[in-house]
Amino acid sequence: MQIAELRTPAMLIDTDRLAQNCAFMAHRAHTLGVRLRPHVKTHKVPEIGRMQVADHFGGITVSTMAEAKAFSAAGFSDITLAVPLDPRKASEAVALAVNVLVDSEEALAAVERVAGGCPRPRVWLKVDCGYGRAGVNPQTESAVRLASRIHASPSVDFAGLLTHGGHSYARIGSAAILDVAREERDAVVKFARRLRDHAIEVDEVSVGSTPTMMHVDHLEGVTEIRPGNYALFDGFQAQIGSCPRDWIAATVLVSVISVHADRAIVDAGALALSKDSGLGDAGYGVVIDLSGMAVANLSLVSLSQEHGKLMGDGVSQLRVGDRLRIIPNHSCLAVACFETIYGVRKGVVEHEWTPCRGW
Amino acid sequence: MQIAELRTPAMLIDTDRLAQNCAFMAHRAHTLGVRLRPHVKTHKVPEIGRMQVADHFGGITVSTMAEAKAFSAAGFSDITLAVPLDPRKASEAVALAVNVLVDSEEALAAVERVAGGCPRPRVWLKVDCGYGRAGVNPQTESAVRLASRIHASPSVDFAGLLTHGGHSYARIGSAAILDVAREERDAVVKFARRLRDHAIEVDEVSVGSTPTMMHVDHLEGVTEIRPGNYALFDGFQAQIGSCPRDWIAATVLVSVISVHADRAIVDAGALALSKDSGLGDAGYGVVIDLSGMAVANLSLVSLSQEHGKLMGDGVSQLRVGDRLRIIPNHSCLAVACFETIYGVRKGVVEHEWTPCRGW
Repeated sequence: MQIAELRTPAMLIDTDRLAQNCAFMAHRAHTLGVRLRPHVKTHKVPEIGRMQVADHFGGITVSTMAEAKAFSAAGFSDITLAVPLDPRKASEAVALAVNVLVDSEEALAAVERVAGGCPRPRVWLKVDCGYGRAGVNPQTESAVRLASRIHASPSVDFAGLLTHGGHSYARIGSAAILDVAREERDAVVKFARRLRDHAIEVDEVSVGSTPTMMHVDHLEGVTEIRPGNYALFDGFQAQIGSCPRDWIAATVLVSVISVHADRAIVDAGALALSKDSGLGDAGYGVVIDLSGMAVANLSLVSLSQEHGKLMGDGVSQLRVGDRLRIIPNHSCLAVACFETIYGVRKGVVEHEWTPCRGW
Repeated sequence: MQIAELRTPAMLIDTDRLAQNCAFMAHRAHTLGVRLRPHVKTHKVPEIGRMQVADHFGGITVSTMAEAKAFSAAGFSDITLAVPLDPRKASEAVALAVNVLVDSEEALAAVERVAGGCPRPRVWLKVDCGYGRAGVNPQTESAVRLASRIHASPSVDFAGLLTHGGHSYARIGSAAILDVAREERDAVVKFARRLRDHAIEVDEVSVGSTPTMMHVDHLEGVTEIRPGNYALFDGFQAQIGSCPRDWIAATVLVSVISVHADRAIVDAGALALSKDSGLGDAGYGVVIDLSGMAVANLSLVSLSQEHGKLMGDGVSQLRVGDRLRIIPNHSCLAVACFETIYGVRKGVVEHEWTPCRGW
């Protein structure tokens, strides 16, 4: 099937680009001397996950129990759920042998209550390296106490320290992102040293976001990295400088459904692209043509549920029924809009993939 | 099942509130002397659609062919697809006997090409009443020409004029929204008069957004209205003054998964609430407790894919494992995040509904 035959809106994944991105990060991890445990939340498709783990140990990172179940069913066996564990989900996480992460006594206690089998559940301590989302503050005594509790627990294995430099998404350009990458690495490596000084063994030290892993200078003291978005990249990653724009593998095929003097409407709205806005006045995505070339003077200025509004001089070139493609600002949220996504190569649909969904 | 037993995040629909909202708008349409053709895109659930059409003629409005198919299969027979028709979908729209809307020669021609059966496809002319999205400009000669073309077409029926005062969402307060409501009404009523002066019969005149239909003073010259969001309402509608906050029927049940000195994290991120931000610094939703009371001093300040970040003095009262509810800014986008949504009454789950999806 040619992409021109697809119903719109449709999520297209350029499989050449995807393969190159996966190979790039796999190679980069080897160069940096770390294992790659890719995050799969960007696409939630086991087939793509297999491309990400090629040439590494096979472990992955997920953001929901639904992803853990789907990827486990597809044969993945070393899965880390990288969101602090909801205590109510402890028993199913343990039953599925998912590595969990905790940053509270309550979550640890919940895992201990349901543990008891062999092997023991592997528990990561989530560390905040400056992002200010989840994770213990590694400067505090309570962080050491919680690490000590996990380490001393008779019913769980202490996997190690895990952090996410998500504040890299608020930095623009290589130098600024490199600062965050160092902060991310140094925060956990230093904390691991401190724990070892307290006779707490720390086997693993896990870091990673796509921006920081594209820019970090070295990863001494780190054992694994968990970038995910890099498989597809997106408009935002290109804007902040994580990748060149032509590395982006995800685009949304759209139809022009209304053309007027000052604007045109396409059939991709917030339920196909998400409401994630780009930097500054970048709008809701970059308009390209079917061959991938940027379309001059067309901005996607607003989205409602099922309408995307284009403005700019380029509108005069459009006709109802024309096809365009939109580079989404945030591929993780855009892919999740679709029941089916299409792996395409040189304009031909080669794969139909079904992202998993829910929690 | 009690709501406390649900996995989180979970979309809860208060069925008492839903029933009251549906009855309110049905009654309001009678008072205004118009038929109610409710939009169902907010929830995409046939069971809720049936509550919306009670006491009216049974017609509905949809935003996608997927909704049209799901509601047709559930027994709805008078369905208007209120997004300009993608010419490539003309044949399936006609096969399903969906009323379509066009604002271009291209789309009209596409319908004519596939028409031929009996009854003839009903085609609405989409009019722009000042929103600046889809629709012909009623001041122009080309708008009259297109109306004339539809009216004279041997293969389709001219249903009438349809507009949407979506710019009401950019106005705050009754007076400002009433201005848009009058603009919406007057633009099509006047255009209908102009067409009749050209001997073009205009049977139906359709208007509607939830804010304008909550505020309009009269609807002389209008035959039907198409509000939709009112069934559930949401934080944004309350903010602009469409409804009191306690009319909102949709909330997202969440679990607290991480608590720190200055913040707490809940397990609802952009894939459960959407990235639609509210007005000003309203954040990504209003935090309430399980009984529906507002929780003081807690703001949902940011969302990433699966994390929602709460800040404010109220954080000190939270523990990992606590349950809260979030009033979404935009119920249409939040409901679409969920595979299943729950109809609840006084804390008990009475219904499990499956919104349709896709295009």
